Amino acid sequence: MAGRLKPSKFEIFLNYKLWLSSVTGEGIMEEERYKLLRLIMEKGSLKAAADEMKISYRKAWGDLKKAESLLGYKLIIRQRGGRSGGQSYLTEKALKLLEAYDVLHIKMDDAVEKAYEEFKNKTKKIK
Amino acid sequence: MAGRLKPSKFEIFLNYKLWLSSVTGEGIMEEERYKLLRLIMEKGSLKAAADEMKISYRKAWGDLKKAESLLGYKLIIRQRGGRSGGQSYLTEKALKLLEAYDVLHIKMDDAVEKAYEEFKNKTKKIK
Repeated sequence: MAGRLKPSKFEIFLNYKLWLSSVTGEGIMEEERYKLLRLIMEKGSLKAAADEMKISYRKAWGDLKKAESLLGYKLIIRQRGGRSGGQSYLTEKALKLLEAYDVLHIKMDDAVEKAYEEFKNKTKKIK
Repeated sequence: MAGRLKPSKFEIFLNYKLWLSSVTGEGIMEEERYKLLRLIMEKGSLKAAADEMKISYRKAWGDLKKAESLLGYKLIIRQRGGRSGGQSYLTEKALKLLEAYDVLHIKMDDAVEKAYEEFKNKTKKIK
Protein backbone atom coordinates (compact mmCIF):
# COMPACT_ATOMS: atom_id res chain seq x y z
CA MET A 1 0.00 0.00 0.00
CA ALA A 2 1.27 3.39 -0.88
CA GLY A 3 1.82 5.78 1.94
CA ARG A 4 1.57 9.48 1.96
CA LEU A 5 4.57 11.42 3.10
CA LYS A 6 3.98 14.28 5.45
CA PRO A 7 5.39 17.32 3.65
CA SER A 8 8.58 18.57 5.17
CA LYS A 9 8.34 21.86 7.01
CA PHE A 10 11.13 23.03 4.72
CA GLU A 11 9.71 21.89 1.42
CA ILE A 12 9.93 24.52 -1.30
CA PHE A 13 6.97 25.18 -3.57
CA LEU A 14 7.12 26.70 -6.99
CA ASN A 15 4.44 29.22 -7.90
CA TYR A 16 3.79 31.03 -11.13
CA LYS A 17 1.45 33.54 -12.53
CA LEU A 18 0.73 34.08 -16.19
CA TRP A 19 -0.99 36.98 -17.88
CA LEU A 20 -1.47 38.59 -21.25
CA SER A 21 -0.95 42.28 -21.70
CA SER A 22 -0.92 44.93 -24.40
CA VAL A 23 2.28 46.49 -25.77
CA THR A 24 1.88 49.17 -23.11
CA GLY A 25 1.60 46.62 -20.30
CA GLU A 26 -2.15 46.88 -19.73
CA GLY A 27 -3.69 43.60 -18.62
CA ILE A 28 -5.73 41.74 -21.24
CA MET A 29 -6.19 38.39 -19.57
CA GLU A 30 -5.21 36.77 -16.29
CA GLU A 31 -6.91 34.11 -14.19
CA GLU A 32 -9.85 36.27 -13.24
CA ARG A 33 -10.76 37.46 -16.72
CA TYR A 34 -10.25 33.95 -18.03
CA LYS A 35 -12.69 32.60 -15.43
CA LEU A 36 -15.18 35.33 -16.27
CA LEU A 37 -15.14 34.40 -19.96
CA ARG A 38 -15.43 30.70 -19.15
CA LEU A 39 -18.42 31.35 -16.91
CA ILE A 40 -20.16 33.48 -19.52
CA MET A 41 -19.67 30.62 -21.97
CA GLU A 42 -21.10 28.08 -19.52
CA LYS A 43 -23.97 30.15 -18.17
CA GLY A 44 -24.91 32.22 -21.22
CA SER A 45 -25.19 35.21 -18.95
CA LEU A 46 -22.81 37.97 -17.94
CA LYS A 47 -24.94 38.66 -14.86
CA ALA A 48 -24.76 35.05 -13.67
CA ALA A 49 -21.02 34.92 -14.38
CA ALA A 50 -20.35 38.15 -12.47
CA ASP A 51 -22.50 36.90 -9.56
CA GLU A 52 -20.57 33.65 -9.35
CA MET A 53 -17.30 35.58 -9.29
CA LYS A 54 -18.68 37.94 -6.67
CA ILE A 55 -17.94 41.01 -8.76
CA SER A 56 -20.43 43.59 -9.95
CA TYR A 57 -22.01 43.42 -13.40
CA ARG A 58 -20.56 46.87 -13.99
CA LYS A 59 -17.01 45.75 -13.18
CA ALA A 60 -17.33 42.60 -15.29
CA TRP A 61 -18.60 44.57 -18.25
CA GLY A 62 -15.93 47.25 -17.83
CA ASP A 63 -13.15 44.63 -17.66
CA LEU A 64 -14.38 42.98 -20.84
CA LYS A 65 -14.71 46.29 -22.67
CA LYS A 66 -11.13 47.14 -21.71
CA ALA A 67 -9.86 43.77 -22.95
CA GLU A 68 -11.83 44.22 -26.19
CA SER A 69 -10.30 47.63 -26.83
CA LEU A 70 -6.78 46.24 -26.26
CA LEU A 71 -7.39 43.21 -28.49
CA GLY A 72 -9.14 45.13 -31.22
CA TYR A 73 -12.12 42.77 -31.41
CA LYS A 74 -15.30 41.98 -29.53
CA LEU A 75 -15.37 39.19 -26.95
CA ILE A 76 -19.00 39.18 -25.93
CA ILE A 77 -22.41 39.80 -27.41
CA ARG A 78 -25.23 40.86 -25.13
CA GLN A 79 -28.80 40.23 -26.14
CA ARG A 80 -31.40 42.08 -24.20
CA GLY A 81 -34.97 40.99 -23.63
CA GLY A 82 -36.54 37.64 -24.45
CA ARG A 83 -38.23 35.30 -22.01
CA SER A 84 -35.11 34.80 -19.85
CA GLY A 85 -34.47 38.53 -19.67
CA GLY A 86 -31.30 38.78 -21.74
CA GLN A 87 -28.42 36.53 -22.62
CA SER A 88 -24.72 36.97 -23.21
CA TYR A 89 -22.52 34.82 -25.33
CA LEU A 90 -18.92 34.79 -26.45
CA THR A 91 -17.89 35.69 -29.98
CA GLU A 92 -16.07 33.19 -32.18
CA LYS A 93 -12.93 35.25 -31.61
CA ALA A 94 -13.31 35.04 -27.85
CA LEU A 95 -13.70 31.26 -28.10
CA LYS A 96 -10.53 31.01 -30.17
CA LEU A 97 -8.68 33.22 -27.71
CA LEU A 98 -9.83 31.03 -24.80
CA GLU A 99 -8.72 27.93 -26.65
CA ALA A 100 -5.27 29.39 -27.32
CA TYR A 101 -5.03 30.46 -23.68
CA ASP A 102 -5.97 26.95 -22.53
CA VAL A 103 -3.19 25.43 -24.63
CA LEU A 104 -0.78 28.06 -23.33
CA HIS A 105 -1.71 27.21 -19.76
CA ILE A 106 -1.32 23.47 -20.27
CA LYS A 107 2.12 23.92 -21.84
CA MET A 108 3.16 26.22 -19.04
CA ASP A 109 1.90 23.86 -16.35
CA ASP A 110 3.88 21.03 -17.95
CA ALA A 111 7.00 23.16 -18.17
CA VAL A 112 6.64 24.32 -14.57
CA GLU A 113 6.20 20.76 -13.37
CA LYS A 114 9.32 19.58 -15.18
CA ALA A 115 11.43 22.54 -14.10
CA TYR A 116 10.17 22.11 -10.54
CA GLU A 117 11.14 18.41 -10.41
CA GLU A 118 14.61 19.30 -11.56
CA PHE A 119 14.79 22.15 -9.08
CA LYS A 120 13.69 19.88 -6.23
CA ASN A 121 16.35 17.33 -7.16
CA LYS A 122 19.02 19.98 -7.14
CA THR A 123 17.92 21.64 -3.93
CA LYS A 124 17.29 18.51 -1.87
CA LYS A 125 21.01 17.85 -2.11
CA ILE A 126 21.62 21.14 -0.32
CA LYS A 127 20.56 19.88 3.06
CA MET B 1 18.76 44.02 -44.88
CA ALA B 2 16.39 43.01 -42.17
CA GLY B 3 13.76 45.48 -41.21
CA ARG B 4 12.12 46.03 -37.92
CA LEU B 5 8.37 45.78 -37.76
CA LYS B 6 6.53 48.40 -35.83
CA PRO B 7 4.65 46.46 -33.16
CA SER B 8 0.95 46.33 -33.79
CA LYS B 9 -1.23 48.29 -31.42
CA PHE B 10 -3.06 45.03 -30.82
CA GLU B 11 -0.08 42.79 -30.24
CA ILE B 12 -0.47 40.54 -27.22
CA PHE B 13 2.40 40.10 -24.79
CA LEU B 14 2.87 37.18 -22.48
CA ASN B 15 4.08 37.91 -18.96
CA TYR B 16 4.96 35.57 -16.18
CA LYS B 17 6.11 35.72 -12.62
CA LEU B 18 7.84 32.95 -10.77
CA TRP B 19 8.40 32.57 -7.06
CA LEU B 20 9.32 30.03 -4.43
CA SER B 21 7.27 29.68 -1.30
CA SER B 22 7.00 27.56 1.81
CA VAL B 23 4.30 24.91 2.32
CA THR B 24 2.23 27.63 3.98
CA GLY B 25 2.60 29.99 1.02
CA GLU B 26 5.13 32.36 2.55
CA GLY B 27 7.52 33.79 -0.04
CA ILE B 28 11.05 32.40 -0.03
CA MET B 29 12.40 33.80 -3.26
CA GLU B 30 11.16 35.99 -6.06
CA GLU B 31 12.95 38.43 -8.33
CA GLU B 32 13.79 40.91 -5.60
CA ARG B 33 15.27 38.44 -3.13
CA TYR B 34 17.13 36.75 -5.96
CA LYS B 35 18.67 40.08 -6.97
CA LEU B 36 19.58 40.83 -3.37
CA LEU B 37 21.46 37.54 -3.05
CA ARG B 38 23.20 38.07 -6.40
CA LEU B 39 24.30 41.55 -5.36
CA ILE B 40 25.62 40.32 -2.00
CA MET B 41 27.62 37.72 -3.93
CA GLU B 42 29.02 40.32 -6.31
CA LYS B 43 29.67 43.07 -3.81
CA GLY B 44 30.56 41.07 -0.72
CA SER B 45 28.42 43.44 1.30
CA LEU B 46 24.82 43.38 2.44
CA LYS B 47 24.91 47.14 2.92
CA ALA B 48 26.09 47.79 -0.65
CA ALA B 49 23.53 45.30 -2.01
CA ALA B 50 20.67 46.91 -0.07
CA ASP B 51 21.82 50.37 -1.21
CA GLU B 52 21.85 49.33 -4.85
CA MET B 53 18.34 47.93 -4.48
CA LYS B 54 17.20 51.09 -2.72
CA ILE B 55 15.93 49.17 0.31
CA SER B 56 17.06 49.60 3.90
CA TYR B 57 19.73 47.38 5.43
CA ARG B 58 17.13 46.42 8.02
CA LYS B 59 14.61 45.27 5.40
CA ALA B 60 17.25 43.35 3.44
CA TRP B 61 18.45 41.57 6.58
CA GLY B 62 14.89 40.84 7.72
CA ASP B 63 13.95 39.40 4.31
CA LEU B 64 16.98 37.12 4.34
CA LYS B 65 16.32 35.98 7.91
CA LYS B 66 12.76 35.10 6.93
CA ALA B 67 13.92 33.12 3.90
CA GLU B 68 16.49 31.33 6.07
CA SER B 69 13.88 30.30 8.61
CA LEU B 70 11.63 28.95 5.84
CA LEU B 71 14.47 27.07 4.15
CA GLY B 72 15.95 25.71 7.35
CA TYR B 73 19.48 26.83 6.53
CA LYS B 74 21.60 29.96 6.52
CA LEU B 75 22.02 31.99 3.35
CA ILE B 76 24.42 34.66 4.43
CA ILE B 77 27.37 35.11 6.80
CA ARG B 78 28.11 38.57 8.11
CA GLN B 79 31.60 39.40 9.28
CA ARG B 80 31.95 42.54 11.28
CA GLY B 81 35.04 44.69 11.56
CA GLY B 82 38.21 44.41 9.54
CA ARG B 83 39.75 47.15 7.44
CA SER B 84 36.75 47.46 5.13
CA GLY B 85 34.31 47.64 8.03
CA GLY B 86 32.53 44.32 7.64
CA GLN B 87 31.73 41.96 4.83
CA SER B 88 28.87 39.65 3.95
CA TYR B 89 29.08 36.54 1.87
CA LEU B 90 26.74 33.81 0.77
CA THR B 91 26.90 30.33 2.25
CA GLU B 92 27.60 27.30 0.05
CA LYS B 93 23.92 26.42 0.41
CA ALA B 94 22.83 29.84 -0.79
CA LEU B 95 25.12 29.51 -3.82
CA LYS B 96 23.59 26.13 -4.66
CA LEU B 97 20.10 27.54 -4.23
CA LEU B 98 20.92 30.43 -6.57
CA GLU B 99 22.34 28.02 -9.12
CA ALA B 100 19.20 25.87 -9.02
CA TYR B 101 17.05 29.00 -9.31
CA ASP B 102 19.07 30.15 -12.33
CA VAL B 103 18.47 26.85 -14.09
CA LEU B 104 14.79 27.01 -13.17
CA HIS B 105 14.54 30.47 -14.65
CA ILE B 106 16.30 29.53 -17.87
CA LYS B 107 14.00 26.52 -18.34
CA MET B 108 10.95 28.62 -17.63
CA ASP B 109 12.04 31.37 -20.00
CA ASP B 110 12.52 28.77 -22.73
CA ALA B 111 9.13 27.23 -22.06
CA VAL B 112 7.43 30.63 -22.01
CA GLU B 113 9.05 31.58 -25.29
CA LYS B 114 7.92 28.38 -26.99
CA ALA B 115 4.40 28.55 -25.57
CA TYR B 116 4.19 32.21 -26.55
CA GLU B 117 5.21 31.53 -30.17
CA GLU B 118 2.52 28.90 -30.42
CA PHE B 119 0.01 31.20 -28.79
CA LYS B 120 0.86 34.01 -31.21
CA ASN B 121 0.43 31.69 -34.17
CA LYS B 122 -2.96 30.60 -32.91
CA THR B 123 -4.19 34.08 -32.03
CA LYS B 124 -2.97 35.89 -35.13
CA LYS B 125 -5.47 33.82 -37.10
CA ILE B 126 -8.25 35.32 -35.01
CA LYS B 127 -8.17 38.67 -36.74
